[in-house]
Amino acid sequence: MKQPLNIVKVGGAILEDPVSLRAFIDAFAGIEGAKLLIHGGGRSATKFATRLGIETTMVNGRRITDDAMLEVVTMVYGGDVNRKLVASLQALGCNAIGLTGADMNLVTSRRRPPVNGIDYGNVGDVVSVNASGFKDLLSIGAIPVIAPLTHDKAGHLLNTNADTMAGEIASGLAGIFDVTLTFCFEKNGVLSDPDNDDSVIPLIDRNLFASLREEKVVEGGMIPKLENAFAAIDRGVRQVKIIHYSRISTPGAGTTIV
Amino acid sequence: MKQPLNIVKVGGAILEDPVSLRAFIDAFAGIEGAKLLIHGGGRSATKFATRLGIETTMVNGRRITDDAMLEVVTMVYGGDVNRKLVASLQALGCNAIGLTGADMNLVTSRRRPPVNGIDYGNVGDVVSVNASGFKDLLSIGAIPVIAPLTHDKAGHLLNTNADTMAGEIASGLAGIFDVTLTFCFEKNGVLSDPDNDDSVIPLIDRNLFASLREEKVVEGGMIPKLENAFAAIDRGVRQVKIIHYSRISTPGAGTTIV
Repeated sequence: MKQPLNIVKVGGAILEDPVSLRAFIDAFAGIEGAKLLIHGGGRSATKFATRLGIETTMVNGRRITDDAMLEVVTMVYGGDVNRKLVASLQALGCNAIGLTGADMNLVTSRRRPPVNGIDYGNVGDVVSVNASGFKDLLSIGAIPVIAPLTHDKAGHLLNTNADTMAGEIASGLAGIFDVTLTFCFEKNGVLSDPDNDDSVIPLIDRNLFASLREEKVVEGGMIPKLENAFAAIDRGVRQVKIIHYSRISTPGAGTTIV
Repeated sequence: MKQPLNIVKVGGAILEDPVSLRAFIDAFAGIEGAKLLIHGGGRSATKFATRLGIETTMVNGRRITDDAMLEVVTMVYGGDVNRKLVASLQALGCNAIGLTGADMNLVTSRRRPPVNGIDYGNVGDVVSVNASGFKDLLSIGAIPVIAPLTHDKAGHLLNTNADTMAGEIASGLAGIFDVTLTFCFEKNGVLSDPDNDDSVIPLIDRNLFASLREEKVVEGGMIPKLENAFAAIDRGVRQVKIIHYSRISTPGAGTTIV
């Protein structure tokens, strides 16, 4: 039987607000067993770029990462956000270790070629996940806290979307771990009534997803989230959770996608 | 018999120049066996602070680290310098992992109380080195690359002098490893004739140090360097090397202090 592993993704909006950050950190520290955190930080990067007089350009929700912006995200994701998260988790006795995909060659990527004439710059599409490197780190009791940066194994860091990276790491580790992938959310889960935060749908499988979609109970941004969840399951992840950031260690909370 | 461990300290001046950085990285990658790198980055931090309109204040060669400056050094030491070094080393097949003292609780410190009325701010004096954490990382083949940041185990990162940190880590690991501590230098070693870079004194013990000092062959900034080297040896380090950054993997090069 494979060892259970909880992979949690948390976004920049939660990390930026001290109150939600505190609640998230407490909840993450409370998760039992082997775990791993992948964080974003886009809002902080944009703010910090502005302080440096560097303009942020987003295309289809993705950051154009020229050399100046790569320096910004390396400092913000890999320095400020990551290092502070580790110090906060260590204060709670959670044995965090703050990494990027370059460390121990954990996640390699390829610089994205221009897409429909758009050059995203120093952006990396994941090529490989070093499952044995992650396993070694977990075996010594370390809790990896991963910034959304990868490398091309030729000396260059590349900016990589944190949601994508979480999905890639989860499926890359599914061969040797029994993986639960959790996406932190600002609502209690997938809701049957968007105005009622208690209307969480506890379990969604493909059949239910199809009918929820047909009935327009789920729509908008929730559809790609759920599609990504099913894609991760297709690649060996046991289950995906969409759950409020403060409840990630609460059994039975949130929506589970199987 | 204890396993040999090479601990190398490299400063900001070498890291900032692309040519010397390249030569250093090649040399570091060439060191056989277990190794660990501690880097500085003060010059980059000062430059970057200037870009942000933050003034740098140094007292007795040490950086006053208020909250804004702590953010700068966290980003520069822990983000930019550290993450790029790791990516460069990985490109050479050197299994680097970029860390601060907060990661795996490797190096804890205490915020320095004001000294003679000078408040250094968020500066940490080392309290403990987690030798078993370092040992675990080395046992899985990782090569720690350490930024000069520590933590107080209460959630706060603290700025710590890289030379001091190298000495503390070296003596903290001397109980379980046969430690050689190497300080990278821009000359070939301790010279008997400052104008002749070939006049390296290969071996210095306490007796020789006393006479070199008396004869004023060594003077100025070299005296505290050598005093620190002997202090490390007093704390269990087998030998300390002072050597040109490009020759750290060259047997017999540089000055060895025993």
